[in-house]
Amino acid sequence: MSSDARFAEAAAALGHSFDGELKVGGNYVGLLRDGDTVYVSGQVPRVGSTVLVTGRVGEEVDLERARFAAKVCAMRALSLLQRELGTLDKVRQILKVTVYTQSAAPFTQQSEVADGASELLQSVLGVAGRHTRTSVGVYQLPKNASVELDLVASVRP
Amino acid sequence: MSSDARFAEAAAALGHSFDGELKVGGNYVGLLRDGDTVYVSGQVPRVGSTVLVTGRVGEEVDLERARFAAKVCAMRALSLLQRELGTLDKVRQILKVTVYTQSAAPFTQQSEVADGASELLQSVLGVAGRHTRTSVGVYQLPKNASVELDLVASVRP
Amino acid sequence: MSSDARFAEAAAALGHSFDGELKVGGNYVGLLRDGDTVYVSGQVPRVGSTVLVTGRVGEEVDLERARFAAKVCAMRALSLLQRELGTLDKVRQILKVTVYTQSAAPFTQQSEVADGASELLQSVLGVAGRHTRTSVGVYQLPKNASVELDLVASVRP
Repeated sequence: MSSDARFAEAAAALGHSFDGELKVGGNYVGLLRDGDTVYVSGQVPRVGSTVLVTGRVGEEVDLERARFAAKVCAMRALSLLQRELGTLDKVRQILKVTVYTQSAAPFTQQSEVADGASELLQSVLGVAGRHTRTSVGVYQLPKNASVELDLVASVRP
Repeated sequence: MSSDARFAEAAAALGHSFDGELKVGGNYVGLLRDGDTVYVSGQVPRVGSTVLVTGRVGEEVDLERARFAAKVCAMRALSLLQRELGTLDKVRQILKVTVYTQSAAPFTQQSEVADGASELLQSVLGVAGRHTRTSVGVYQLPKNASVELDLVASVRP
Repeated sequence: MSSDARFAEAAAALGHSFDGELKVGGNYVGLLRDGDTVYVSGQVPRVGSTVLVTGRVGEEVDLERARFAAKVCAMRALSLLQRELGTLDKVRQILKVTVYTQSAAPFTQQSEVADGASELLQSVLGVAGRHTRTSVGVYQLPKNASVELDLVASVRP
């Protein structure tokens, strides 16, 4: 099965479509390619014009919902890659993922939140989805999003 | 008009000079070049030895002042690039900008703060100033700075 | 003296061994190489299965202890590089280090914390250890770690 087919399956499993416009939250671009390296901007769990998961994780939002948010962020990043490359099969390797979780003071499961995104990337891309990662708990995120994710990837010419 | 002339205009508009020493806040360097890729360290809105904007945005500091802080951070980054390259016309593309805003708990306009920097980069560099971006709200920043910005750029040989 | 010998000296000075398994906190890898560029995942100050320094810096943890935590994070990153490359002498340049400090609200010495890591990198690697850096104060970190550090490096073929 192609990465694109697995992407479509993942979208269906999440119950959302990522075919529409992927709004950018400010005066920047969603993705830039520099040779074989691609930078993807920070993605919040937005579908259409709605941020699906907002609020502080460990207080207003539980771990399962935060993991869902991380998956939606990852799907947006994949959708941007797919539009740029034509097919996700041209992703050679996800190199680095950073996951920011809007956290309550005592919430320390940022890695478990980020695993939602990491598992999705690997289920869609296979070994090309393995990556290095940094997860941190921040105080606030744009539009009160619970999670934000950005990444750097290597792509085939 | 050259990027350098637009940089000088932006400095005049902000009412500050970026010709002096750009102090580094610790045991590291402000900029490193790796082939055609340049990494710029996290910049706080410091001119000379004074951090111009300190405190929590959305509480002690309003959006307009935070946007000004983001612009000063971006000017410092541009000044480092200009010193390294001789001229800003050698910047091929700003690839990635990360903007950290020291935020009050309910403040969610981190993107609007970061737009201050993004708009400045594009007004000085034109299309070479378009970039991917991540904006997050953090709990504290070095020297109580309200905003910190770092970036990665691609440069001409 | 080789970088590897200086690494062993630094481990002895810290009173910990970095020879054992370097546990990864989730579904990702500790290090990835893309050509001559290496990405190292976010490291917390863990030795074996124990995170040595936990809690909020400036409140539960003082500056000196936080600097120690930053050094342990840096040693883990160096150990990952050593395992990948065979020898630390193959590190051409540490390009970028990001240091996240779990901070109390009024704690603004994130740069001083990060200097612990920066000084260690330079004492082990010499000029190859000079780097750009971003230091921020975050609200929480995985496993309640006081400090987290990631880096990007350039390596010799």
